[in-house]
Amino acid sequence: MINLRFITALLLLLMGYAEVQAQQTSKAAWIWYPGDLDIWVSNKMQNRRTERGAFLPPFWKMDSHYVLVEFHKEFNLANAEEVNLYVEGQYNVKIDGQAFSGYPKKITVPAGKHKLSLKVYGQDKVPAILVQGKTIVSDESWLTTFEDKEWIDESGKASDKSGTTYVSVGSWNLTNPLSPPSQFKLSTALMAAVKTEKVDKGFVADFGKETFGFLKLKGIKGKGKLHIYYGESREEALSADHCETLDLLEIDLKGKRDSVIELSKAFRYVNCQPEGNVTLDGVSMLYEYAPVTEKGSFHCSDEQINKIYDISKYTFHLNTREFFIDGIKRDRWVWSGDAYQSYLMNYYSFNESPIVKRTLLAQRGKDPVTAHINTIMDYSFYWFLGIYDYYQYSGDQKFVQDIYPRMKSLMDYVLNRRNKDGLLEWMPGDWIFIDWADKLSKDGEVSFEQLLFCRSLETMALCADMAKDTEAATNYKKMAADLKAKIFKLYWDESKHALVHSRIAGKPTDNVTRYANMFGIFFDYFTPSQKLDVKQHVLMNDKIKKITTPYMRFYELEALCAMGEQSYVLKQMKDYWGGMLDLGATSFWEEYNPDKKGTEHLAMYGRPFGKSLCHAWGASPIYLLGKYYLGIKPLTAGYESYVVEPSLGGLEWMEGKVPTPAGEISLYCSKKEIKVKSDEGRGVLRFKSVSKPIVKGGTAVEVGKRTYELKLEKGTAYTVSYTK
Amino acid sequence: MINLRFITALLLLLMGYAEVQAQQTSKAAWIWYPGDLDIWVSNKMQNRRTERGAFLPPFWKMDSHYVLVEFHKEFNLANAEEVNLYVEGQYNVKIDGQAFSGYPKKITVPAGKHKLSLKVYGQDKVPAILVQGKTIVSDESWLTTFEDKEWIDESGKASDKSGTTYVSVGSWNLTNPLSPPSQFKLSTALMAAVKTEKVDKGFVADFGKETFGFLKLKGIKGKGKLHIYYGESREEALSADHCETLDLLEIDLKGKRDSVIELSKAFRYVNCQPEGNVTLDGVSMLYEYAPVTEKGSFHCSDEQINKIYDISKYTFHLNTREFFIDGIKRDRWVWSGDAYQSYLMNYYSFNESPIVKRTLLAQRGKDPVTAHINTIMDYSFYWFLGIYDYYQYSGDQKFVQDIYPRMKSLMDYVLNRRNKDGLLEWMPGDWIFIDWADKLSKDGEVSFEQLLFCRSLETMALCADMAKDTEAATNYKKMAADLKAKIFKLYWDESKHALVHSRIAGKPTDNVTRYANMFGIFFDYFTPSQKLDVKQHVLMNDKIKKITTPYMRFYELEALCAMGEQSYVLKQMKDYWGGMLDLGATSFWEEYNPDKKGTEHLAMYGRPFGKSLCHAWGASPIYLLGKYYLGIKPLTAGYESYVVEPSLGGLEWMEGKVPTPAGEISLYCSKKEIKVKSDEGRGVLRFKSVSKPIVKGGTAVEVGKRTYELKLEKGTAYTVSYTK
Repeated sequence: MINLRFITALLLLLMGYAEVQAQQTSKAAWIWYPGDLDIWVSNKMQNRRTERGAFLPPFWKMDSHYVLVEFHKEFNLANAEEVNLYVEGQYNVKIDGQAFSGYPKKITVPAGKHKLSLKVYGQDKVPAILVQGKTIVSDESWLTTFEDKEWIDESGKASDKSGTTYVSVGSWNLTNPLSPPSQFKLSTALMAAVKTEKVDKGFVADFGKETFGFLKLKGIKGKGKLHIYYGESREEALSADHCETLDLLEIDLKGKRDSVIELSKAFRYVNCQPEGNVTLDGVSMLYEYAPVTEKGSFHCSDEQINKIYDISKYTFHLNTREFFIDGIKRDRWVWSGDAYQSYLMNYYSFNESPIVKRTLLAQRGKDPVTAHINTIMDYSFYWFLGIYDYYQYSGDQKFVQDIYPRMKSLMDYVLNRRNKDGLLEWMPGDWIFIDWADKLSKDGEVSFEQLLFCRSLETMALCADMAKDTEAATNYKKMAADLKAKIFKLYWDESKHALVHSRIAGKPTDNVTRYANMFGIFFDYFTPSQKLDVKQHVLMNDKIKKITTPYMRFYELEALCAMGEQSYVLKQMKDYWGGMLDLGATSFWEEYNPDKKGTEHLAMYGRPFGKSLCHAWGASPIYLLGKYYLGIKPLTAGYESYVVEPSLGGLEWMEGKVPTPAGEISLYCSKKEIKVKSDEGRGVLRFKSVSKPIVKGGTAVEVGKRTYELKLEKGTAYTVSYTK
Repeated sequence: MINLRFITALLLLLMGYAEVQAQQTSKAAWIWYPGDLDIWVSNKMQNRRTERGAFLPPFWKMDSHYVLVEFHKEFNLANAEEVNLYVEGQYNVKIDGQAFSGYPKKITVPAGKHKLSLKVYGQDKVPAILVQGKTIVSDESWLTTFEDKEWIDESGKASDKSGTTYVSVGSWNLTNPLSPPSQFKLSTALMAAVKTEKVDKGFVADFGKETFGFLKLKGIKGKGKLHIYYGESREEALSADHCETLDLLEIDLKGKRDSVIELSKAFRYVNCQPEGNVTLDGVSMLYEYAPVTEKGSFHCSDEQINKIYDISKYTFHLNTREFFIDGIKRDRWVWSGDAYQSYLMNYYSFNESPIVKRTLLAQRGKDPVTAHINTIMDYSFYWFLGIYDYYQYSGDQKFVQDIYPRMKSLMDYVLNRRNKDGLLEWMPGDWIFIDWADKLSKDGEVSFEQLLFCRSLETMALCADMAKDTEAATNYKKMAADLKAKIFKLYWDESKHALVHSRIAGKPTDNVTRYANMFGIFFDYFTPSQKLDVKQHVLMNDKIKKITTPYMRFYELEALCAMGEQSYVLKQMKDYWGGMLDLGATSFWEEYNPDKKGTEHLAMYGRPFGKSLCHAWGASPIYLLGKYYLGIKPLTAGYESYVVEPSLGGLEWMEGKVPTPAGEISLYCSKKEIKVKSDEGRGVLRFKSVSKPIVKGGTAVEVGKRTYELKLEKGTAYTVSYTK
């Protein structure tokens, strides 16, 4: 017994008190004013863009963090407690309003009920704290404000009625006290080039596929210059005059040295061209990536679809960074329309809620709203929609409540821009984007924008309810219903069986485009007969101008899937994404027009290599295959209830997993058999069978003609034998 | 001839091209987004407060600069021009939208018409540029924006209708390219202690008078601690337990070293107490001050008044720093009510427009408005009033136009807080300050606040006109007139011959205080008979509670002066400010109640040394003597027209100068003679004389009973012999 005690004491000494303490205590996280680190890191990230060596920052307002922030929480302690304080910024610490002198790193909070508060000033970095005691830990339960209004009267008495608004702190669950938020960075791994060929005085290294990171120069020596030309394609790397990104280094080294280029870049090929007597042994790279887990999966009988899925996942992973960005070569900006699709892909792959939340917060920034998100009208709307989808997939009502005030002020901005007919049209400062497409009219009141506006108002109504802003909820609901009625009154053209593109000078145009029509389908705005009309006369009508970006193909194929056209969509997918693979794509592109030839595929924006060959919106098969083939989706928030409605769309078999808040739902489906297992509560498997199915684990009920439903219980493995 | 050329060439070589160029060219200044450096420096300054070693930051929202800013100007050049670029932040440079690669320090702008633009990102420091060419120089004519909205279409064409709002840049006329805005600091000068006495193990050094700066430790050595206790009074420095500011240094020095304390402080006495074997040879200090010129002056036959004027000027200079602050010991914050008085003193002393402008900008910060300025309702109003006064004294219409949008959004905030009767009363988050006074009621609708509100609406009407916002000007005018009528209807009490203090639950109270009544006089809101009533029944009525702060005595004495009570006020001044001098004051205090005794004078806020003994608002004699004794004031903006109406108030003679935009107005006045000379255009000297005056330089016209007026022409020296 005594020996054991001795050993314990020795262990304590060896391990150090702190470490032992860490084992006993709850885990503290770095906390800050909500949204502030999101904005700060996104400023850093979005200001990393260069174009041919020139700094190319965003053209919208970039906000800043609050420079002076108070954090506090009340504790009721059984025993006095020693607390370690880690702070980014200049600070004070108070117990019950009494400040400690100086900048203490450790304090003792006495037993009993006490309020612990810290106030932090930081201009260059986001004010942030990590507080670690045994029971006192900084976490999402702390409150914060940027104006505590703690004034005193002439007797020194603090005001007891300041009316300060306190909100829940922000946190990304960063728990290392020695790695403060300002040092947040992604992971890296060393990667070698797969091939190097001599070109001119230097060489071109090929990393085998699209990649991203910091180029590492090996054994550099001599005096002179080193030109580095990056290429997503070999052609781009070889084009000193037109490659989009490059580096020019001044070298003056007597002995050989290794060096890492400071600014990370996207490339497959790197063309190194020395000048003077500079020499270089070779290059490798530090691949930079978000350390996410592949929680979703899809595998099937069609190898091309498997390849499309894998390349989609890789494309999506490359664009899943500090935030969901558009593409890794050029902008690396947080574009709301692009991110909106990434959120949806994310729910069927990594299911990384923190990245969704921080992208939404970074996009929104601070009040006052002086422009649409990214200056684009449609992108404001995707932002609203993204919040609702996040709630649907995560069930995270707290986030909706926390972000609701920022939703409201953005919606106020939008509402203030309605014209006399209550519709939205171009005003100075607005970019009407819709899609990258030739001769796409943005004039007058575009139906597509009104549809998104209407959906956003519906979203506001739902979120206002969650935030207990019931009066606003009623208003938003009414505005949405009125707008919806107006949309159909103004834009639905019986003779064209479709919504027309726009109204100019008070008159509907003749122009029918796919945009509003496909959104009308999965927004469920059409009657069943209108849906069929739109499918026939618009979506599957070759006379209606084709879409050439994966961005809008996402919605086009979703609309078709929503109407049960999985077989048609599978062929489209094989054609379109398969077409890129046939051209040697190792990641999916910003735009793909099968009619183009050779290096035409690389050009965009009037620049020969302007196109991004690794664009998040190219990865939509992840979402389509998960939601419309595996057929798994929540019916109520956070998969509290959900449906599994597999659709092979011509495949022999498929299997996969979809991540959910409690774990995952896994499915195998062939033409004879369905196997399903779920970690969530109230699900239903829906399938068609020409004969009565045999079910292991439960009982299927016939709910319609040849349609069966099987209730799914958490943790049970079901096997259904059926006849297709 | 050839020799001369040779010498010139040699000189060019010797002096360096840059210097020669500087002589040939216009002077460039650092420029930034307007208000941003003001906010940034004020954040730094206001976060320097400590209380007994603990960091004590403000309790209101601190804003931040825009982190991403574009600057541009169009030039039409006869010849190509080489331009030097100095930038704080990460940047790009474009000519006509075409970016240079990298971060060039020198570019050549070709001849012809070209747009030069720079875009700068800076999170830690304010994005700022200085551009120096021969004719291309950065100055206040450049434009800037925080969102340029320069998006492109799919062909790469930049949007031609982005609707961006560009505004004039901000500038403090900092012209040293090697001293960027982030390094802005005040001047310093070495000062010695005048006396040192041994106390305990250390010593107390006396610097002879109130001062401010960085303590310098001479010959410090040994291992242990060094306690430094600062005191505005000897008592404070001797009180280790209660002095308001202190330093605790850990010393470990083998040889003797000199050291300067990093954080500047206010003190007259410094008590240094070593622990362990620490020794110290002595202390001196780096006096820190704003390098302003004493443009205004006052001197007279009364030596006590001269002393009061000099100490006022010194007090005011100590509080004239990066901004006009409240007091140098404790807060050092930019309080709007305090600064408002400083502006007025400034117009009669240093006449430093840049400090007025930057104080106004720093106080206002950024939108959205989430609280009153400094959280205080009255302080929002002083902010409006300060802008109008600045315009009156400077004639700087451009500043009014530039700041008008921020005036409008603050006024929107105020207007949104009116109650159902259109009046302002306490709402959560509001501090109703008025004055430091015991048992001063803040309940209900306080008349004082409505008066300030009304004056602010009048100010808005005038400024809206200047900003060409005519519809708003009409609205503000009407709101002001309505409110003024309401004030007299609700608060004027015929039986009390005064405005009552407040209305509670819809009923006027019985309470009469000085505040609203004295403002009503110099706002000229009363009828002549109401004025006389108020003078007799309030201002000169000892039964109405006395004012004990120089802050409100400022307005009380101004009201009396405005009614011609200069003799009475002179006695009050000698009594009140003279009273502080008799107690040994070397600067004027935050509060002075003659009824208090001994060290009671040092206490405030329940702390024995809580009071500030050097408070800007203690310096009001500067303003009163200049405006109401010398009697010099503008009648229209920027002294375009003005009046000189001297009033000896019992003095034998007085002389002084008042700074004006074009120079100064100087005056000598005795009971027999007036001498006046002015650098401004259309002035009038007004004086009383029992006999016809004899005038050298012009002709005096009798305009009323024994009242004469003499038109003053620029540059002429007039001498008037008259009979008092």
